[in-house]
Amino acid sequence: MNAGEKRRRLREGLAGASPVVAVGAHDALTAQLIESYGFDCVWVSGFGVSTMALAMPDLNLLTMSDTLEAARRIDAATNLPTVVDCDNGFGGLLNVVRTVREFERAGISAVCVEDNTFPKRNSLFQGESLRELLPLHEQARRIRAAKSVQETEDFVFIARVEALIAGYGVQDACDRADAYVEAGADAILIHSRDKSLAEIEGFLGKWPRTGTVPLVAVPTLFPAFGVDELFQKGFRMVIFANQAMRASVQAIEETLRTLSESRRAAAVDDSIASVEHIFELVRTQEAVRLDESPGLVT
Amino acid sequence: MNAGEKRRRLREGLAGASPVVAVGAHDALTAQLIESYGFDCVWVSGFGVSTMALAMPDLNLLTMSDTLEAARRIDAATNLPTVVDCDNGFGGLLNVVRTVREFERAGISAVCVEDNTFPKRNSLFQGESLRELLPLHEQARRIRAAKSVQETEDFVFIARVEALIAGYGVQDACDRADAYVEAGADAILIHSRDKSLAEIEGFLGKWPRTGTVPLVAVPTLFPAFGVDELFQKGFRMVIFANQAMRASVQAIEETLRTLSESRRAAAVDDSIASVEHIFELVRTQEAVRLDESPGLVT
Amino acid sequence: MNAGEKRRRLREGLAGASPVVAVGAHDALTAQLIESYGFDCVWVSGFGVSTMALAMPDLNLLTMSDTLEAARRIDAATNLPTVVDCDNGFGGLLNVVRTVREFERAGISAVCVEDNTFPKRNSLFQGESLRELLPLHEQARRIRAAKSVQETEDFVFIARVEALIAGYGVQDACDRADAYVEAGADAILIHSRDKSLAEIEGFLGKWPRTGTVPLVAVPTLFPAFGVDELFQKGFRMVIFANQAMRASVQAIEETLRTLSESRRAAAVDDSIASVEHIFELVRTQEAVRLDESPGLVT
Amino acid sequence: MNAGEKRRRLREGLAGASPVVAVGAHDALTAQLIESYGFDCVWVSGFGVSTMALAMPDLNLLTMSDTLEAARRIDAATNLPTVVDCDNGFGGLLNVVRTVREFERAGISAVCVEDNTFPKRNSLFQGESLRELLPLHEQARRIRAAKSVQETEDFVFIARVEALIAGYGVQDACDRADAYVEAGADAILIHSRDKSLAEIEGFLGKWPRTGTVPLVAVPTLFPAFGVDELFQKGFRMVIFANQAMRASVQAIEETLRTLSESRRAAAVDDSIASVEHIFELVRTQEAVRLDESPGLVT
Repeated sequence: MNAGEKRRRLREGLAGASPVVAVGAHDALTAQLIESYGFDCVWVSGFGVSTMALAMPDLNLLTMSDTLEAARRIDAATNLPTVVDCDNGFGGLLNVVRTVREFERAGISAVCVEDNTFPKRNSLFQGESLRELLPLHEQARRIRAAKSVQETEDFVFIARVEALIAGYGVQDACDRADAYVEAGADAILIHSRDKSLAEIEGFLGKWPRTGTVPLVAVPTLFPAFGVDELFQKGFRMVIFANQAMRASVQAIEETLRTLSESRRAAAVDDSIASVEHIFELVRTQEAVRLDESPGLVT
Repeated sequence: MNAGEKRRRLREGLAGASPVVAVGAHDALTAQLIESYGFDCVWVSGFGVSTMALAMPDLNLLTMSDTLEAARRIDAATNLPTVVDCDNGFGGLLNVVRTVREFERAGISAVCVEDNTFPKRNSLFQGESLRELLPLHEQARRIRAAKSVQETEDFVFIARVEALIAGYGVQDACDRADAYVEAGADAILIHSRDKSLAEIEGFLGKWPRTGTVPLVAVPTLFPAFGVDELFQKGFRMVIFANQAMRASVQAIEETLRTLSESRRAAAVDDSIASVEHIFELVRTQEAVRLDESPGLVT
Repeated sequence: MNAGEKRRRLREGLAGASPVVAVGAHDALTAQLIESYGFDCVWVSGFGVSTMALAMPDLNLLTMSDTLEAARRIDAATNLPTVVDCDNGFGGLLNVVRTVREFERAGISAVCVEDNTFPKRNSLFQGESLRELLPLHEQARRIRAAKSVQETEDFVFIARVEALIAGYGVQDACDRADAYVEAGADAILIHSRDKSLAEIEGFLGKWPRTGTVPLVAVPTLFPAFGVDELFQKGFRMVIFANQAMRASVQAIEETLRTLSESRRAAAVDDSIASVEHIFELVRTQEAVRLDESPGLVT
Repeated sequence: MNAGEKRRRLREGLAGASPVVAVGAHDALTAQLIESYGFDCVWVSGFGVSTMALAMPDLNLLTMSDTLEAARRIDAATNLPTVVDCDNGFGGLLNVVRTVREFERAGISAVCVEDNTFPKRNSLFQGESLRELLPLHEQARRIRAAKSVQETEDFVFIARVEALIAGYGVQDACDRADAYVEAGADAILIHSRDKSLAEIEGFLGKWPRTGTVPLVAVPTLFPAFGVDELFQKGFRMVIFANQAMRASVQAIEETLRTLSESRRAAAVDDSIASVEHIFELVRTQEAVRLDESPGLVT
């Protein structure tokens, strides 16, 4: 599926009658699997890519180029639209503008940019309660600049509001969401640490545009709330951001532990995918057939 | 650990009194975990990287650049020496020469180059029994050219002999191993599909240099043979080439299946690594402390 | 200008009443300058990129990835359509298929793939007169496979025929051009070393599709023939493939010679672009204004 | 020449009895030419790379990854040591630490990091006279952190002091240079816009470590002062930072102008390097000989 078709699919999903369910991928095969298990969208997680591809903490060490390259590979492996976590846009206004340009050109369907200062902290990391955010006007200015260079109609800009997670409360979150939408943001991702969802419900109830502008939830910190509950509360997109990566780490550790104790490949063979299954997943037989096909010649 | 130290560690391992146990990594975090579970060496598997990073079959679709970039990230995440699977060297003699130069410059400890023609098939893929290999003299010529441009003393070139797996028998394998060592190869990887190990034992018994030149085994197709048995038979290095990748695929599929059924993050939380564990693995706290340390100022 | 608009511009140019004039770029700024000097199209030359970006001979040492990355940067710097020299497609049929997919996804307007075997020689390099080419049927099979995976309507595949330059004569060139067009090629680049153009005129006169299928000329070896003459003879596109790169080398050598003798920056200041001119070319003032603009805030 | 040898060469040069003369390269061939014209060192200019490879203004739009990749290609093309302009280290303390690690691993001989805030302005760009710099203590803290992760003995860290160019005067420049050396910097690059050199001479006279710690000059803005004068005043290294790039732009523009008017390749052939000269520069014949050599076979 080409970039235009993917973007239309995402736009339609965000406007549709059922929730868009996205899952985070940290590599290409994970994206392909997300598609084959019936999800609607792939999220390229900065946390996932910095963890797996670089073994580095999620502290803006990933460059725009690192993210772009991971996103390209992930996007190429799936027919689903891809939404890329671009952190705070990797610097100042001009960096945000370059970021949006590069991801749009690469055929990505959407970027998500948050209002953290650069360099930032991972939002899930336990630290001081009141984090510094970019001033509302500065982030709005960046969004407006980014939207002004967009070259295709359907590319989606998701503005992520960190006001709740940084401790500034519901009113600040509403003000920011308003300003970002007025600056051109196509959707708002509202983040929170509050497991009870009370804070987010405060936002949903207070923000006048709830129900009009697509809202995005990442329920890592409130995992008891399922897709359909979140949809009923007003979210159009729900992102399972890092579960595939965390599953991968768990399994790799278990396999390494067993291998280090047994020092024998047979000890893990039953708990891992077979070589033949891997060949099937990446369509080896199909590629060999194409490679050998005499039928292509008229 | 710098590149020189890693290479010396690999050289010492290959000459030492105990086997060098390597595990295949397809990304940086896997390499870090391989180190923390006590293994000796990291193998950058072409099969692993093409599967996970590109979702493509292992049919020489991975370019030298794709492999190099994966290898750099993997190598940067570990203090262990890294051995990179360079397939058939990505083309003709000049491509093999560029390949060796690039990986040596990148600080990699060793490359492994096989005598398949380009483009090749994955050795594990079931196909015709008699595959075409590069003529012995051509592969020897390439090895000699590659060794002649080496810029550091300790960089290791492992020649992989596909004679057994391609159906040419023990004598051809011995001839090839001889020619490759005479051309400068530092070690020989001998591959086979024979689960009973009879074919490989034929080689070990017949090849005059067994015990003198380091031999490398990849027991994917004879998983019942453990590290210590293989060491006693004459191998100095044993590579568990793709188990971590296959574990990862299995776990990601299970997690996606559960998520697609439950549509709720909580449904998988108990079977995947916690977010806090991921933070610890990539040393988030340590980085934050360094970032905030006033103590660095005198 | 987005990828779709660029491709339509190229398609219209190839069907238009005047010649499409392309110039080879080896880096992004050269592409921008090609646009500002009024040309119609940018050619990403394998010869130019391997020379300047890698300082390597044009012998298929450039990987698909190296070429793709150079092409992306070049394409991003211009509103003109970009045609990328993909040599022989970097390997076998599956490599050609991956190549076409990657360049199409990257927003490139066209690729050009020749019927040399891999690894190849630069066509301008003086060597044996009769070079081996891919069998006609094999190249046609590859073109058909490549066209079958195309995801957008307007992406252009140019098949380069090396029959004349490799010494196989006009009839073989016609047979190949026919087969490639039947396999789906959108245009034919016909190459020759014959300064008198007699050989090429033989082809133009004999090939039944001259005037119907767009033909492309690269007059490096017959520089006396200008764009308009070549257009009148039947070519729709003329590529000045490597002149900008060769100008660059000449000027850099002169500047280095002067600097090495004078050991004083002032000695070259009058014969090189001023720092202020460079700032203007890359629109520094415009970027600073955007960065500082309070006007973006409502 | 391997990375260790290059670094020792740079260290010896900085301690030697004659000046180290460096020239800026924006691509690999330029680096090779710098070596063949007898210079001592290659400077990878951020200004040059952002201009030529990206056609972007020098405003921290170049990511660390863009710079690293350009630096790797440039370094691979020469036996000279390579010093890389890393701007302000691409972010905060952790970004500076990653930067140094990556360039050291890549075999680069030295990095140069300045005390501008991120994102920055190009130092040559005419703007407000008093620019904000990083606080002295913050930059010292970053240098100390960067030096603490160094893995090889000979890698060189050059601290660039922007105090004069930003309008803070000689005393602040001395204080900064002192703090940076105490934090571990191996050399100091002191920058100025003052064509008369009075400001720099003020620094040289006042700074107690002049003559002890290697000092580096970039005479773009005081081009009348030659290498030997600057050496006598106390500089150990002089960098002609951007002349090759500016020569390249001038020549490309002239060639494009002529081509656009004449529309005939012959019109420029006499003023550009010949195709045969390019083949010689990148050692095409030598590579073909190696590729065809039967003599490699015993």
